[in-house]
Amino acid sequence: MGELVDTNAPYLAAQLPPMGIELQRISQAPDRLEMLTQALQEALQRSDLILTTGGLGPTEDDLTREAIAQVMGETLYVDSTSLDNLKETFRQRGIPMPSPNVKQANLIPSAHPIPNPLGTAQGWWVEKDGKIVVAMPGPPHELHRMWEMEAQPRLQHHAPGAVILTRILKTFGQGEAAINETLYPLFHLPHIDLGIYAQAQGIQLRIRAKAPSSNEAQKLISPVEAEIRRLLADYIWGVDDQLLEEQVGKELRDQGLTLATMESCTGGLLAHTITQVPGSSGYFRGGTVAYSNDLKIAWGVDPALIREHGAVSPEVAQEMARAAREQVGADLGIGTTGVAGPQELEGKPAGTVYIGLAHREGTLSFNRRYALPRSLFKQRATTQALLELWSLLRRNREK
Amino acid sequence: MGELVDTNAPYLAAQLPPMGIELQRISQAPDRLEMLTQALQEALQRSDLILTTGGLGPTEDDLTREAIAQVMGETLYVDSTSLDNLKETFRQRGIPMPSPNVKQANLIPSAHPIPNPLGTAQGWWVEKDGKIVVAMPGPPHELHRMWEMEAQPRLQHHAPGAVILTRILKTFGQGEAAINETLYPLFHLPHIDLGIYAQAQGIQLRIRAKAPSSNEAQKLISPVEAEIRRLLADYIWGVDDQLLEEQVGKELRDQGLTLATMESCTGGLLAHTITQVPGSSGYFRGGTVAYSNDLKIAWGVDPALIREHGAVSPEVAQEMARAAREQVGADLGIGTTGVAGPQELEGKPAGTVYIGLAHREGTLSFNRRYALPRSLFKQRATTQALLELWSLLRRNREK
Repeated sequence: MGELVDTNAPYLAAQLPPMGIELQRISQAPDRLEMLTQALQEALQRSDLILTTGGLGPTEDDLTREAIAQVMGETLYVDSTSLDNLKETFRQRGIPMPSPNVKQANLIPSAHPIPNPLGTAQGWWVEKDGKIVVAMPGPPHELHRMWEMEAQPRLQHHAPGAVILTRILKTFGQGEAAINETLYPLFHLPHIDLGIYAQAQGIQLRIRAKAPSSNEAQKLISPVEAEIRRLLADYIWGVDDQLLEEQVGKELRDQGLTLATMESCTGGLLAHTITQVPGSSGYFRGGTVAYSNDLKIAWGVDPALIREHGAVSPEVAQEMARAAREQVGADLGIGTTGVAGPQELEGKPAGTVYIGLAHREGTLSFNRRYALPRSLFKQRATTQALLELWSLLRRNREK
Repeated sequence: MGELVDTNAPYLAAQLPPMGIELQRISQAPDRLEMLTQALQEALQRSDLILTTGGLGPTEDDLTREAIAQVMGETLYVDSTSLDNLKETFRQRGIPMPSPNVKQANLIPSAHPIPNPLGTAQGWWVEKDGKIVVAMPGPPHELHRMWEMEAQPRLQHHAPGAVILTRILKTFGQGEAAINETLYPLFHLPHIDLGIYAQAQGIQLRIRAKAPSSNEAQKLISPVEAEIRRLLADYIWGVDDQLLEEQVGKELRDQGLTLATMESCTGGLLAHTITQVPGSSGYFRGGTVAYSNDLKIAWGVDPALIREHGAVSPEVAQEMARAAREQVGADLGIGTTGVAGPQELEGKPAGTVYIGLAHREGTLSFNRRYALPRSLFKQRATTQALLELWSLLRRNREK
């Protein structure tokens, strides 16, 4: 019905190529038995391996077990060991097991249970007539654990002898077309697939190679990566699944620096993003969300600057960064001020943002304009603030 | 390869039920001609209408046109009107048309072009043997415009005389299985489809009815909604696409109250979530992210309480809420303190959170434990804080 954006399929899709498993199709079907059964039947005709997520809960519309039983032509029964485990889970939570949960202990003769210490939905490993069906729970953290600890290791034994390796290089400061032009000579190399994608945290380059072994695939990728690094040099801030907030955190930790924030238009998203990284309390001192001018002033911003330039100005962005840094005794400060929209402010259009950075020797500011809805605006402004900080930290390291 | 999360399918999925179109399947296939052709062929056997997005660009892996031509058994040709339009687009952009773009002017005899003023990829409207295929571009803003202005109005003529209406009720404070048990008698009503889903902001109930008209569908839904409201009473905080932060904002605005936050373990996510709502500057005064004890104290927390009870305690959560409220002169304050993990803190395990609320007459606190990774922990703790605030605001209104 469109209420959910599926992130489980992309998660699993990314896991398969390094195992040499070719993804043929992603399908989503409604919570209706005949639709699920049809989807499974088609999948079994097409592929050797089917991974399912979701539909393992205790409710009436959790029908994955029923659908698998039907396509396998087998009958569901309550497995007593599974039921004991389930009861034990509820005992530990200190609540009685609701009767609908019994169905989570169901199995069919071809199914082996897969443990799920994070929830009540155990998985199923089904092998029959040369096909494998692995049914996993829908909540992403339960799925990720079950995949990584259980399903992936078991599948490794079944995977064919070819490996697809992927290397992602994450860049900042150059447009898609400019990068495309710079990298033009690398686009039609044999056995190498090079792609460019605009992502939330900047332009990403994907280098992919298929070879009989991991080693051989790596040998194809390495020279291409080296050449891209030569051509794009300082524009690359990370690789693979590294996040900008992690890279910024690493630089801060390596250089022994602390950070503070004062946010207006990003409304706490900058502090939130920084504190997503485990261990961020080691370098992030704290921050303020100063939505009103009173609070900016209460937290150290010079009122004369707001009067003279307006709250949405490069001067106030730098002043906020300075105040953030000084108020909490941090080495570096970031200030954000802008117009998240939809209304304009102080005659500045929605989408305007000024980012201020403060360090021991002074302050600097950056200005961007994004024609984006409020929530994407906050995200882009936050990314931009982190990119500018990363860039400052890199320049500082090279000094 | 898993780098992209598909938001186009959920967008279209949400559009179909009000038109009386039942969604049978969402499929994603790799950019390879035989895979796309197979997916289209299966879809044509299953359904009367197929909507495609993506693969209409100028590059070699844009193969949607080729795949449709193949399943329809027709031959591609360059349509001269389409080519003229394309050339005109490039003329207006002031750049010469690159030769690969010619393929964007391709048609087959059964296809009519659908204009796309936002890009170079025109859509296709294909009708043959009682089936309709509508091919639309992948970039979301191009897709949305083409759907709303072109495809949706044309499809309205073909839609059968039936409407599917959906009502979503959003709840808090009861588990999935407990709700399932409470609502058990409502599960097999005629013409009504009832679903239960665990979502980031709590358990959601979806009531869906199919009827010849909107009015009749509404008449089926209303008594079920009334019965659920009777059974779950105070547990329902919103409906349909309402968000918790919007509902909290509405209560604050209606009651003329202002809010401030002091966050530790949620690290800015609470302020970020509150400020996602347009107009939140009207009631949200501001907040602090006090990751260290020094900063908690600098921003008004009594150091004696931290010494006596530890920073991760109900006493300090309440004190943070009180300090947040008093420091910025707000009516209400929220404080969050806990252990985001992965390491434990002050002998408290990762996943522990204390939420403090402060109002004119006093303070209160709530305690939860989530066995979740850091980023989900922050999300759940933030949701819980907003739910407790919403609950307080509701009790206050009823006084």
